[in-house]
Amino acid sequence: MHNIVKDLFTIPRSLTGNGVRQTLAYLKNMCPLMTIHEVPSGTQSFDWTVPPEWNIRDAWVKDSSGKKIIDFKVHNLHVMGYSTPIHKRCSLAELLEHVYTLPEQPDLIPYITSYYKERYGFCMTENQKNALLEGEYELFIDSDLNYEGSLTYGEIIIPSSNPNAQEIFFSTYVCHPQMANNELSGPAVAIHLAKWLMEKENSKFTYRFYFGPETIGSLVYLSKNVEVLKKNVYAGFVLSCVGDDRAYSYLASPYGDTIADKVAQNVLKYHAPDYVSYSYLSRGSDERQYCASGIRLPVCSVMRTRYGAYPEYHTSGDDLELVTETGLQGAFLVYQKIINTLEFNAYYTMTCLGEPQLGKRGLYPTISTKESGDIVRDMMNVIAYADGSNDIIDISNKIHVSTEDVIGIIEKLKVANLISSIS
Amino acid sequence: MHNIVKDLFTIPRSLTGNGVRQTLAYLKNMCPLMTIHEVPSGTQSFDWTVPPEWNIRDAWVKDSSGKKIIDFKVHNLHVMGYSTPIHKRCSLAELLEHVYTLPEQPDLIPYITSYYKERYGFCMTENQKNALLEGEYELFIDSDLNYEGSLTYGEIIIPSSNPNAQEIFFSTYVCHPQMANNELSGPAVAIHLAKWLMEKENSKFTYRFYFGPETIGSLVYLSKNVEVLKKNVYAGFVLSCVGDDRAYSYLASPYGDTIADKVAQNVLKYHAPDYVSYSYLSRGSDERQYCASGIRLPVCSVMRTRYGAYPEYHTSGDDLELVTETGLQGAFLVYQKIINTLEFNAYYTMTCLGEPQLGKRGLYPTISTKESGDIVRDMMNVIAYADGSNDIIDISNKIHVSTEDVIGIIEKLKVANLISSIS
Amino acid sequence: MHNIVKDLFTIPRSLTGNGVRQTLAYLKNMCPLMTIHEVPSGTQSFDWTVPPEWNIRDAWVKDSSGKKIIDFKVHNLHVMGYSTPIHKRCSLAELLEHVYTLPEQPDLIPYITSYYKERYGFCMTENQKNALLEGEYELFIDSDLNYEGSLTYGEIIIPSSNPNAQEIFFSTYVCHPQMANNELSGPAVAIHLAKWLMEKENSKFTYRFYFGPETIGSLVYLSKNVEVLKKNVYAGFVLSCVGDDRAYSYLASPYGDTIADKVAQNVLKYHAPDYVSYSYLSRGSDERQYCASGIRLPVCSVMRTRYGAYPEYHTSGDDLELVTETGLQGAFLVYQKIINTLEFNAYYTMTCLGEPQLGKRGLYPTISTKESGDIVRDMMNVIAYADGSNDIIDISNKIHVSTEDVIGIIEKLKVANLISSIS
Repeated sequence: MHNIVKDLFTIPRSLTGNGVRQTLAYLKNMCPLMTIHEVPSGTQSFDWTVPPEWNIRDAWVKDSSGKKIIDFKVHNLHVMGYSTPIHKRCSLAELLEHVYTLPEQPDLIPYITSYYKERYGFCMTENQKNALLEGEYELFIDSDLNYEGSLTYGEIIIPSSNPNAQEIFFSTYVCHPQMANNELSGPAVAIHLAKWLMEKENSKFTYRFYFGPETIGSLVYLSKNVEVLKKNVYAGFVLSCVGDDRAYSYLASPYGDTIADKVAQNVLKYHAPDYVSYSYLSRGSDERQYCASGIRLPVCSVMRTRYGAYPEYHTSGDDLELVTETGLQGAFLVYQKIINTLEFNAYYTMTCLGEPQLGKRGLYPTISTKESGDIVRDMMNVIAYADGSNDIIDISNKIHVSTEDVIGIIEKLKVANLISSIS
Repeated sequence: MHNIVKDLFTIPRSLTGNGVRQTLAYLKNMCPLMTIHEVPSGTQSFDWTVPPEWNIRDAWVKDSSGKKIIDFKVHNLHVMGYSTPIHKRCSLAELLEHVYTLPEQPDLIPYITSYYKERYGFCMTENQKNALLEGEYELFIDSDLNYEGSLTYGEIIIPSSNPNAQEIFFSTYVCHPQMANNELSGPAVAIHLAKWLMEKENSKFTYRFYFGPETIGSLVYLSKNVEVLKKNVYAGFVLSCVGDDRAYSYLASPYGDTIADKVAQNVLKYHAPDYVSYSYLSRGSDERQYCASGIRLPVCSVMRTRYGAYPEYHTSGDDLELVTETGLQGAFLVYQKIINTLEFNAYYTMTCLGEPQLGKRGLYPTISTKESGDIVRDMMNVIAYADGSNDIIDISNKIHVSTEDVIGIIEKLKVANLISSIS
Repeated sequence: MHNIVKDLFTIPRSLTGNGVRQTLAYLKNMCPLMTIHEVPSGTQSFDWTVPPEWNIRDAWVKDSSGKKIIDFKVHNLHVMGYSTPIHKRCSLAELLEHVYTLPEQPDLIPYITSYYKERYGFCMTENQKNALLEGEYELFIDSDLNYEGSLTYGEIIIPSSNPNAQEIFFSTYVCHPQMANNELSGPAVAIHLAKWLMEKENSKFTYRFYFGPETIGSLVYLSKNVEVLKKNVYAGFVLSCVGDDRAYSYLASPYGDTIADKVAQNVLKYHAPDYVSYSYLSRGSDERQYCASGIRLPVCSVMRTRYGAYPEYHTSGDDLELVTETGLQGAFLVYQKIINTLEFNAYYTMTCLGEPQLGKRGLYPTISTKESGDIVRDMMNVIAYADGSNDIIDISNKIHVSTEDVIGIIEKLKVANLISSIS
């Protein structure tokens, strides 16, 4: 997964434009099921309008000696996203009106955009800014805003064999330039999940992935699919910031009460007991749209360190060192466990009254000692709560055993015809 | 408000009698909407009977030299409330049978009454009692118990323009002699609230105030109005001990689950985050009647320092120094905020799907920076929870912003046609 | 009660056999209402089969000098329960294959059984084992497994005068050999409760007691009575480990939400505020059957120190010293309080609106002082919550007063016609 991040790192992405198309083409190459969609600039989506398509080819600032003091080709973040084209000479004072820095992180370039108001700007480190001398500067941005352009997104649907299956939905975004964790980690993990799911057989759920721009892209996607999503999505997850290895995080849905929340919290409790739990008040990605009032899809987010909670967030410090293969693998594994739990999940009930006699089935030690009680404790606890009112996540939560272990026990009990799922 | 307390301080009040009438006349003078009601002694009210009317003109104890050792005109508390008339000479021993003091607060006169058993008594400081010498004493109480008298209370009703409006109810009492916080602070704050409400236009609610004796008075009032109160009262508050400036307190209804509790706790959380919260077990005023089994009006109490929780309570130490203008103003402000919240309160829902685009309405910064996310955080949070299932108090509680701020945000969103209340 | 434990201590009990019969005969002698039931070996009960009846007359191991190194007549625990008969000579090595000890408690003999797989075994202390020398040993177990035998249990039913009465159910077991707390304390307390209940008049509930083997016995009993138990049992309790005086414990039903849980927790809160609370995950006795999925009787357990939670559990250290008369009495008292609370329990409501005037009924001090408020506090609090929605346990929990005190207050209020129960 780290190679994906590396391959895509320097492609100049934004809300729209060829950088997005190139990124999606790369991902589609990995997972040919992906379909690519173009939505014309000016399209109305709920309260929003698709902006003109933006493309950029080059940009720099030269000092009076002709030396490039910043260069888009050195780092994409040097240009404010959606900057209008410019080529002019100006004083230092005028240049500074268009310069953005991070005074408290003097070595890092900030990530700045201006999608819905036409302006231009340059981003640099505070140190670079402080080194600027009086004199004439030459500003150059070779970009264009195309009102006849379009917004591009990709969709993967991996159908269940059951035509009436509900869906598990994953959303990640491909609109951030030259930052690794936020946001190439999400697409990298998402495409691997899709490839893994394509190999799975007999999935109970259909799996749906959205790869596209944040906010306007997810609004476009929602507005085109809102009825089917509201009808079919059983649980959904926003994949963002899933690449560092410093923490695990969970960000709740508005009320924290959906099946997505339930499975995410349960899996994290065993996978990463010290995970950080955030309420919906800390949201910051496309759950803002999927969970919006009037839509309220059952969507939450499992991340590594949350956006905004790590110092390199939205700066040039969010680079290929910050994201690690371990970090990506950890997130991938959590989502695999979430999927496995959802796939297996059901309400179970015992087929006999009273405790079953495990001994005659080889499931219980034949000598009772102080210790033997503990040996089958977990199995007895699954049996105790398999009363038709608990799904496997409830059982896991009640008996303090992971759903993987609960599943293992239920499979043994199924073989012994002691348990059955109820519909 | 402090002037009201001062003006009324030395009027000799009790459950019944001319002191109550004088006090109510003073308040009616401030708010002519007040109607005065007389209820004959002997009237049955639920389980209780209105007692004979008690009036007192003078009282003292003289020592053998003829010197007044205590004098009702110096402090009303020197006579036990509802003392029967007496004029006799007796020994120190006999006098002491009728003397009440506070051994642990030797400088303070206690407040003692005997409403429902005929007896007489004198109250003095422990120091005064200890200074008494052997010898003959002359006891004098010029009082009378009139079985043809009546109990007096005042009522203010400020009607909503909506004839079907529900009511907000305030109750305070005017039966305590010469104590400032308990209880002239309540009437002072209540009459100011009434005057303020009379100037408000388009109130959603009708406002009802009761000024009268505690317990028997509120029972009389309840028994005469129980059906209308049970039908109309949306929220009610007992105003007592609202004059010192040492603390804020909240005393819950029996289950702490009424809209009165909800708004009181919310307002206090922002107005006085360190307020003291008491369960109904600590009750001590007329919520005992309004919330009684079988009645259960949605009534709670917001106080400054609660009755019983300050050392001067029910003593001569509860004086004009204890009550401050700041203390009274603080309580007045809380009740204003409670009223404003209730008046504005409604369930709101967004008019669009997905997040609205605030930028095009000038409600969102046009450049996205690390900081810009926080600037409109509160507005986005209101939007997130305006889904028709939360009133503004719920939203305030969920997003950790005062209802005043929620109201300000909703008013901006209303102007932009982004939000509407639901009926 | 300690005498019962002592009298029964050395009778060789097991799941089945004459030791159980002897034990039940002793108890029936104390409470002739008991009926004794025999259930043939091979009987199917839910998922289980009644095992062959096991009886043992003698057992020992002799060393090469002919000296008995262990002897069943010295301690019953020296033989593994349900050991098949044996008489042979063998080497030390072969003997050791059949020896069970407790290496971490080298002075104690473990309690080991093998009910459902035929084998034999000897239990001894670790110290005894370590002292064994190489050489020939003679093993002797004079036991038999009778496939034509039966399992024996006793039942006591003390009927209410109301033929439609619901039942309170107590279950205890008589299958453990020569251990005092686990389990002769349960039968001792149970038989005393039965004798006390027989003397009570006008019981609201019918009382049902089961005395029999654990697990298979309670399954047999359940399978024969499951419909009547599911229909009639209002609350039930497993009596086990009720004899030491080191702690009180409560073990919840699967969801901790039955009336049995409610009354047990309430009574313990006042009887033994530092009691230990265990979830159903710590279960270990016949609540496993009574609360099993598909049965779910409202059963929990109040114990002294819980099985498994004291070091002498399931060893020869669980002896007549461990169980004390004080310990047994404490448990007996808790169960009496539980029964008294359940018998008296009802929903009460006040007969008047507003607070009643206690003063005219002699229930309230006639002079109001700072202190007088507290004197009748508890009565006023009962009155406050007697609104028809709280039973006496709810009231007790809400006002922080024991149900005994609540009952005392309600009885006073009943005399004054101020309160009535609702049906």
